[in-house]
Amino acid sequence: MEKKLRAQLEKIVGKGVVLTSKEDLTTYSYDGTATWAHMPEVVVLPTTAEQVSQILKLANDNKIPVTPRGAGTNVSGGSIPIKGGIVLCATRMNKILDINKTNLTATVEPGVVLQDFNLALAKQGLFYPPDPQSFLGCTIGGTVAENAGGPYCVKYGVTKQYVLGLEVVLASGYIMKLGGVTVKNRTGYELAMLFTGSEGTLGVITKITLKLIPMPQASKTMMAVFDDMVVGGQAVSNILASGVVPAKIEFVDNFILRRIEEMMPMGLPVDAQALLLIMADGSPAAVEVEAKQIVDTLKKSGAREVKVAKDAAEAAKYWKMRSAGFAATFGAAKTVLAEDVAVPRDKLAEFIGKLGEISERTGFFISHLGHAGDGNLHPAIFTDVSDKENFAKAQEAMEEIFEAALSLGGVLSGEHGIGLEKQRFLKRAMDPVALNLMIKIKSLLDPNHILNPGKIWEEERV
Amino acid sequence: MEKKLRAQLEKIVGKGVVLTSKEDLTTYSYDGTATWAHMPEVVVLPTTAEQVSQILKLANDNKIPVTPRGAGTNVSGGSIPIKGGIVLCATRMNKILDINKTNLTATVEPGVVLQDFNLALAKQGLFYPPDPQSFLGCTIGGTVAENAGGPYCVKYGVTKQYVLGLEVVLASGYIMKLGGVTVKNRTGYELAMLFTGSEGTLGVITKITLKLIPMPQASKTMMAVFDDMVVGGQAVSNILASGVVPAKIEFVDNFILRRIEEMMPMGLPVDAQALLLIMADGSPAAVEVEAKQIVDTLKKSGAREVKVAKDAAEAAKYWKMRSAGFAATFGAAKTVLAEDVAVPRDKLAEFIGKLGEISERTGFFISHLGHAGDGNLHPAIFTDVSDKENFAKAQEAMEEIFEAALSLGGVLSGEHGIGLEKQRFLKRAMDPVALNLMIKIKSLLDPNHILNPGKIWEEERV
Repeated sequence: MEKKLRAQLEKIVGKGVVLTSKEDLTTYSYDGTATWAHMPEVVVLPTTAEQVSQILKLANDNKIPVTPRGAGTNVSGGSIPIKGGIVLCATRMNKILDINKTNLTATVEPGVVLQDFNLALAKQGLFYPPDPQSFLGCTIGGTVAENAGGPYCVKYGVTKQYVLGLEVVLASGYIMKLGGVTVKNRTGYELAMLFTGSEGTLGVITKITLKLIPMPQASKTMMAVFDDMVVGGQAVSNILASGVVPAKIEFVDNFILRRIEEMMPMGLPVDAQALLLIMADGSPAAVEVEAKQIVDTLKKSGAREVKVAKDAAEAAKYWKMRSAGFAATFGAAKTVLAEDVAVPRDKLAEFIGKLGEISERTGFFISHLGHAGDGNLHPAIFTDVSDKENFAKAQEAMEEIFEAALSLGGVLSGEHGIGLEKQRFLKRAMDPVALNLMIKIKSLLDPNHILNPGKIWEEERV
Repeated sequence: MEKKLRAQLEKIVGKGVVLTSKEDLTTYSYDGTATWAHMPEVVVLPTTAEQVSQILKLANDNKIPVTPRGAGTNVSGGSIPIKGGIVLCATRMNKILDINKTNLTATVEPGVVLQDFNLALAKQGLFYPPDPQSFLGCTIGGTVAENAGGPYCVKYGVTKQYVLGLEVVLASGYIMKLGGVTVKNRTGYELAMLFTGSEGTLGVITKITLKLIPMPQASKTMMAVFDDMVVGGQAVSNILASGVVPAKIEFVDNFILRRIEEMMPMGLPVDAQALLLIMADGSPAAVEVEAKQIVDTLKKSGAREVKVAKDAAEAAKYWKMRSAGFAATFGAAKTVLAEDVAVPRDKLAEFIGKLGEISERTGFFISHLGHAGDGNLHPAIFTDVSDKENFAKAQEAMEEIFEAALSLGGVLSGEHGIGLEKQRFLKRAMDPVALNLMIKIKSLLDPNHILNPGKIWEEERV
């Protein structure tokens, strides 16, 4: 079977881009998620929608699972081939097809690396805000399939707010066009939105048209130091209530800032209980005014110290610190359960308080990092998957974190998606009929359930 | 049947809010669209989701068509009970349930009038940008069902970009909750987006949670006068390419500005071929800078004259002029076919040129009005529905306008939806499999096709 499949795939995409060696399969057996891995039978790297179509037809006829992926930076297990079969990797579909400065749109293939796209846009004074912290490596197709977020989303919204048009290949092999290149489009249901965030379960994205905005002309970064995490959380709410929406509001706790200072000494206040990193952007004049207002609010909200980055270099240092936060967290233990809950922004301080209670009750240290301006935190618990007892208890503690977020009107995932990680909690977090409806829509589009099977829900058939 | 139905509905909602007199039925037989009307059998005005649920159960059991509506300001025939049956009018569900300044969200019932909502928000320094020009009367449920646009969408996006959570009653009577109150939410498919813009065909919206932003602190309005419409269209593209995104960029042609000047003399340059009305908003300092840049670009782009409104009163006068444009158009003939096409923004000048050619070729005068900053124009043709020959020719000319927009990569509807008006063109403007998929999703949610039947597509069953 494997040999025949390989030959059939090679007929579609050519030799050299159908991988079956153990080393290659291992490379595609995992993604950015800590606790899952599964070997595919074969990896195929197409370059055109037509090739993707033929691959899906072949898979559909033979009921072979297909896991679409790009760079595999997913952190909810979305790109792990948990049912084996074919990994369809889009990284060779990496052309920026069009950047239109007057229409303020761009059309790209799914395998374009987000940072490459950002750099190409910057040359023309253009800006695409969604910035998952994997931006140096992640591919745009994946960010659309996951409806990715990031720090900039406080002011600028998430990926779905920028998707204007999609080309998707259905399980049947049909190449379907949705939406277009206009910023307004009221032609029937919002199907492009249905595919955005569908985690590769409804079709394979082969082309994307995105809305752009002009690059903000200026920005200013501030760092606020707090002696109390809850007070820091409250300061975030106070800034938003003051009538300013900064471009980014990020939260870093004492544990993470100490780890970062160890890794790259930059004189961080290692005794602080929390740091807020805040960016204002826009026209130079507006940035001046907003930055002043933000500094004022921070001081009134109990910040021990507020530093305004004196220039771009200092600002870049602060943001590098924030970017290092994820690595700092993941380097801290054998297994790190890093979560992605979001709560209403006015409940942020209360949620941070609840995390403290959970930590005390369960005995697990919980680190805090995240997009506080969206109420979107990534609490992390340190454990070791090979220590079964400890790992089980860590998972229980994580469940308590979910429950705490849900009880405050929050959600199970702010930006990472459900994937494999959160399937068992999904029923608790959603209207059962809505969940059922999703599975019915899935069955409508992919009756043989070949597309990224095993993801989002525990049982697929209804 | 009618008597029994009336009694059953009265049992659900109480007496006095089930209407069957000819006068009442006539009132609900039409909407803001010129060319359609149809009498319902009965009109019911519920006040709770539970009542809506019972009404839909009753209708579903007896396969009675239900046309949901609010204020009926729809301009694509979406709220006309074209198959008779029940009109479910949500105007009594008009409570603003929550405005949360820190979370920057609001939760409302569907019958809240958009302007009432705007005024309530303004008191707290908050802003909800989507502003269909029916804002004085339209209800928020309708704006969500239509994914409404408006002038502010250039900078701030359309309704779907603000919908965070929905409560919808399905045809089965089930009250389903989608999304929530957080700005990030990655729990399964984007079903709230599927209902947004579904024109009442998938469910009845009974509660809406919207994202808000702080009220911009300042704004400045400019009026630019052009001797040539195509040059005016090009100026719009030039502004966007210059790196500024104004809050609004509206286009008014000579015909409309003369009509407005007749109706309410304000010293408009009646010999101008086109006016652009532009607003910059944000912090006072930013507005100064942006306004200067916009004025510069307008002058370089061939504007004969650029006036900057000296104060709020003068700005309000300009915008009142723009608002009067629609009335000016509709008062101009017995029947006005006002369209709602959108083209890529860099194709605006070319599209205006094509409209001129169509006008010349068909002999129909075409007036131009619209949201030029989105490439979204509302070309209008003047005819008389009782003059069959002339009306048929006018419809042919309108078809040419559609074809011209589509040939430039544009779309059939920028913000008004398909409703009854554009069904016969839909097949031409969409991927056939996508269209088929929409109808399948419709059948999944509403197997008896009771919800707003006869809308969007010509044949519903697949």
